[in-house]
Amino acid sequence: MRFFSDNAAPAHPKVIEAIAASNRVDTAYDGDEWSQRLDGAFSDLFGTEVRALWVSTGTAANCLALAALCPPYGGIICHRDAHIEVDEAGAPGFFTGGAKLMLLDGPGAKITPEAVRDYCDLIRKDVHQVQPAAISITNATEYGLVYRAAEVAALGQLAKERSLALHMDGARIANALATTGESPSDMTWRAGVDALSFGFVKNGGLNAEALILFRTELFDEVAIRRKRAGHLSSKGRTLAAQILALLEDGLWLENARAANGVAQQLATAAPHRLAYPVEANEIFLNVSAAEAAQLRSQGFDFYDWGPGEIRFVTSWDQQGEAVERLAAALAAL
Amino acid sequence: MRFFSDNAAPAHPKVIEAIAASNRVDTAYDGDEWSQRLDGAFSDLFGTEVRALWVSTGTAANCLALAALCPPYGGIICHRDAHIEVDEAGAPGFFTGGAKLMLLDGPGAKITPEAVRDYCDLIRKDVHQVQPAAISITNATEYGLVYRAAEVAALGQLAKERSLALHMDGARIANALATTGESPSDMTWRAGVDALSFGFVKNGGLNAEALILFRTELFDEVAIRRKRAGHLSSKGRTLAAQILALLEDGLWLENARAANGVAQQLATAAPHRLAYPVEANEIFLNVSAAEAAQLRSQGFDFYDWGPGEIRFVTSWDQQGEAVERLAAALAAL
Amino acid sequence: MRFFSDNAAPAHPKVIEAIAASNRVDTAYDGDEWSQRLDGAFSDLFGTEVRALWVSTGTAANCLALAALCPPYGGIICHRDAHIEVDEAGAPGFFTGGAKLMLLDGPGAKITPEAVRDYCDLIRKDVHQVQPAAISITNATEYGLVYRAAEVAALGQLAKERSLALHMDGARIANALATTGESPSDMTWRAGVDALSFGFVKNGGLNAEALILFRTELFDEVAIRRKRAGHLSSKGRTLAAQILALLEDGLWLENARAANGVAQQLATAAPHRLAYPVEANEIFLNVSAAEAAQLRSQGFDFYDWGPGEIRFVTSWDQQGEAVERLAAALAAL
Amino acid sequence: MRFFSDNAAPAHPKVIEAIAASNRVDTAYDGDEWSQRLDGAFSDLFGTEVRALWVSTGTAANCLALAALCPPYGGIICHRDAHIEVDEAGAPGFFTGGAKLMLLDGPGAKITPEAVRDYCDLIRKDVHQVQPAAISITNATEYGLVYRAAEVAALGQLAKERSLALHMDGARIANALATTGESPSDMTWRAGVDALSFGFVKNGGLNAEALILFRTELFDEVAIRRKRAGHLSSKGRTLAAQILALLEDGLWLENARAANGVAQQLATAAPHRLAYPVEANEIFLNVSAAEAAQLRSQGFDFYDWGPGEIRFVTSWDQQGEAVERLAAALAAL
Repeated sequence: MRFFSDNAAPAHPKVIEAIAASNRVDTAYDGDEWSQRLDGAFSDLFGTEVRALWVSTGTAANCLALAALCPPYGGIICHRDAHIEVDEAGAPGFFTGGAKLMLLDGPGAKITPEAVRDYCDLIRKDVHQVQPAAISITNATEYGLVYRAAEVAALGQLAKERSLALHMDGARIANALATTGESPSDMTWRAGVDALSFGFVKNGGLNAEALILFRTELFDEVAIRRKRAGHLSSKGRTLAAQILALLEDGLWLENARAANGVAQQLATAAPHRLAYPVEANEIFLNVSAAEAAQLRSQGFDFYDWGPGEIRFVTSWDQQGEAVERLAAALAAL
Repeated sequence: MRFFSDNAAPAHPKVIEAIAASNRVDTAYDGDEWSQRLDGAFSDLFGTEVRALWVSTGTAANCLALAALCPPYGGIICHRDAHIEVDEAGAPGFFTGGAKLMLLDGPGAKITPEAVRDYCDLIRKDVHQVQPAAISITNATEYGLVYRAAEVAALGQLAKERSLALHMDGARIANALATTGESPSDMTWRAGVDALSFGFVKNGGLNAEALILFRTELFDEVAIRRKRAGHLSSKGRTLAAQILALLEDGLWLENARAANGVAQQLATAAPHRLAYPVEANEIFLNVSAAEAAQLRSQGFDFYDWGPGEIRFVTSWDQQGEAVERLAAALAAL
Repeated sequence: MRFFSDNAAPAHPKVIEAIAASNRVDTAYDGDEWSQRLDGAFSDLFGTEVRALWVSTGTAANCLALAALCPPYGGIICHRDAHIEVDEAGAPGFFTGGAKLMLLDGPGAKITPEAVRDYCDLIRKDVHQVQPAAISITNATEYGLVYRAAEVAALGQLAKERSLALHMDGARIANALATTGESPSDMTWRAGVDALSFGFVKNGGLNAEALILFRTELFDEVAIRRKRAGHLSSKGRTLAAQILALLEDGLWLENARAANGVAQQLATAAPHRLAYPVEANEIFLNVSAAEAAQLRSQGFDFYDWGPGEIRFVTSWDQQGEAVERLAAALAAL
Repeated sequence: MRFFSDNAAPAHPKVIEAIAASNRVDTAYDGDEWSQRLDGAFSDLFGTEVRALWVSTGTAANCLALAALCPPYGGIICHRDAHIEVDEAGAPGFFTGGAKLMLLDGPGAKITPEAVRDYCDLIRKDVHQVQPAAISITNATEYGLVYRAAEVAALGQLAKERSLALHMDGARIANALATTGESPSDMTWRAGVDALSFGFVKNGGLNAEALILFRTELFDEVAIRRKRAGHLSSKGRTLAAQILALLEDGLWLENARAANGVAQQLATAAPHRLAYPVEANEIFLNVSAAEAAQLRSQGFDFYDWGPGEIRFVTSWDQQGEAVERLAAALAAL
């Protein structure tokens, strides 16, 4: 029974249908009808004019955004546990041409305006020290915590004061919005976000993510960088169609709610074991090695996060029986 | 009636079926069963042990290979009309960290050992001039010509003498093999090719290309670079499954033969107008502006290549009636 | 008798004196009194407010300028024989993060507005092809020809129309100005030049070149890039002092006149052998291999430029007797 | 009275003499007689065959070495306070093409084999996480502490076990050797160091540093990278001559002993205020803001390192009277 990663889940059937339906002759690259509808669909969702590009991975979305927001000689402030720092093989350095990730601490992989301010204040304003150019936050975070719109806005305010760009890695933005019930616009551009990696692959998509540019003037540069990084698929319609299928009738939000719901079900079963509050679709539990082995012997598949800590991730497709068995097993710990 | 680009064609139905069939829970990235079968499938095809990686675009395949074969301070010898020079937005410079493309002339976008030798001999062996590290050829070329295995081997021999790596951009390698009837092994590693971008997207695939490493020791570095460039899809099974579907029962070769056949049919209709011999699935014709306009008014969609020159590209799926009408129209010029 | 390269010449005695005189305790990097005087000295020379930075090589000056004027994904239009293309080991690719040099032909390594316009017009305005961002010209050129201010202005006008930046590699700008008698301002910013590599090392300096920014807002970025490239010497006063010594009383122009004068003396001796007009301090002669060997046997040191062509370069310090002997030898050919 | 930085000191008179003496016609770049003597001079000093290159800054020496020792996708383990991390404007990212600095803690900017081992053990061996490729240590450290040869050897042993290269930033290697009395060979290649940035500028030089390659096969690549980074001065003899002047009769060691001696004199005056042991030419003192102001009002120039901490740096040329006055002032705190 798989609770290992939302990356392991299948795509939603409607996504596969959309791929099949878009499999016909059309203009190559992003000139097709599906790709051409993206800007409009996301502008509707966000209630403002945005530009949107499909890419095939979250790493590409994050790093194309960062390359547009930070010069090669700049710094990107993020959490020490951010995906861009820990799990992207140095891709930000590659895409930006050598920019520096500036690492902050903070519980649950969240950063605060205070931490950003303190960090910046310690940097001498000279040519010997790298100067920060951007902040990148992940919502929901790598530990399944959620930034509320007001928290993002506080960071956005600071970013503005310090002339820093603000990027949001939204690999699980759907889960965050499902939890908070806040609007996509409040969570992003109204809070000062310049660019959002809008994740679909962990949430029912197959291999399409969206990069949303609230600063629409960045589009031309990002489009060039996408091509230059080998991310301009010649049959881009297959990516656009996936995204449109998930946007339609709020399927993306429905999927996220399903995954979050399962996470809550599991959290409720073992409230005293939680390493962090469960605010999205990830559950981190404190267990002994023996307990972990016992769970594994019962057929549950999960991630050994660190000594005494395990991680479960729930997906949009998670089945009822396996979930109930896991909840029972956790409750029995 | 579309004769514009093989990129505009749909994927083969078996490819869509394979995507759907692989849409189930499995290990993320390239740990799934489909991805794990790639090395074996290509090793069988090439009759030697190879390592194979899926990527989503030909640009990514080409540039990951070049980055592994050429240091940032090296040069890559290629034709002035090569895709890597003309149509990849400078991606080789991005992936390699600034390597220099060294441009040769030659009819039909083919380069010869003599041209390579002459170019190299003019470079001073000092630190002021960039020293070549690799040769990259395209087969079939951007003008639809084909290198025979013996021609590749002659370049491979020179490459070896000069300590140059040899890369083949095989965006249309299937068309080249369909034309020559030569074996995949004779065309590549036996001829000295170190890495091959094996194209599927123009030949019935959706968004999966394969990078084949005949120098298997390059695999680890290339795998890291793939991740670092944002090309490690989390549900890689969907890419691997496409490739395997096209390899099965030689579908890839069958598709290429179909496209080549249509090209021959068109070439036969207008033999005196051909700008180049038609050896793959591209037809370049010398026509006046008035003739081009006339063809377009008849509903044919093609590419204005340059003054007095137009390009048709045929695809695996090309329909009989449209082809016959185009052949008739060309014959009537 | 050395006529090989102006790089081989010694520095002017006043430069050595200036180094010694500046060898005392002062603020590190560019905070010292000499460095602080550079902006003013060059603003006086150019009759407008400029920002100036010392660097230790012409390659650094050129490439720092180009990195500020061209994005990683842009193109730099230059002559096929430009120093940045031929003799800087790919440094422009390194400093810019992979920008592409776009090579034009033209006699004597000069480019014309027509050639630039024709080149640009052939580039499709899409993301697949690299778009030009800058023009770089060398004055005097690698073949010792000179752009007059009006020629530069014509390129500057075109650059403006096409939104291209304009860089001048002035490794031998002193020689060009000495020949034309035109003012530094007419030759540069009034003609549309954005940044100038002002060469001193070939003209009496030891290891100091100046990068002049007519677009003063580029200074901060260039200063960071200079540090980041390891070119911010901690005792920068020794570089600034060299430059100031050469600027004082027009020593730089006097040196260039001396070198140019010797070149004219040699050119006059063999007018029928000149491969190019002699407009600066380089003389290219058509000679047979036997004649070249004969000259060498007489003790003259020069460069074999290519089959049947040799190059002499004259320096600020060239001695009368050796020059007269060479002139006689050339006249006797 | 300047105790601010050894970068502010003048060059030794013999260095200026050497520059003047080498100011004559000779082969350009590094073909001159002085440059050609460097390999031999350093091979003698280190008692083994080494290759040596001059560069004009320590940043260049460090980053050229790191670029040769670490691929773009690798990691360089160093202390959080290392110069390459804190004071080089991100130059390692630029020269390597985006490699990641992996930061360790440790008192006095020293790192231990245990810290390196622990750090490495936490890195998953997959393509998602950057894998370390090199260790870089600074001797003497940024806090004026010294690694003994045995400590370096312990790191060298670990580096070998883990297939990591070992670089030493020796901006103040002379001070470290003067303190320990250990041999240059024991401190470097016998301890497993692959490349050493041998600093001269802080120790009596003007603008010449040496990069020593104990792995001599790296020379060709480093020489190309030096040119490509704009660091191949055309009159390199002026850099080589400086280095040779400082090597002659052990002047470099004599200078370091003088600076270290002054530092000990100051340390002895205020033993209870020392933030770190004084092992080279830097003294960090714990003082109140009032005390710092008082010292400054007495005419002493120093660096405010952080809250309650000030830094003095002594130089080879430090004058007796100023030192005595400072020692008295410190003793009176």
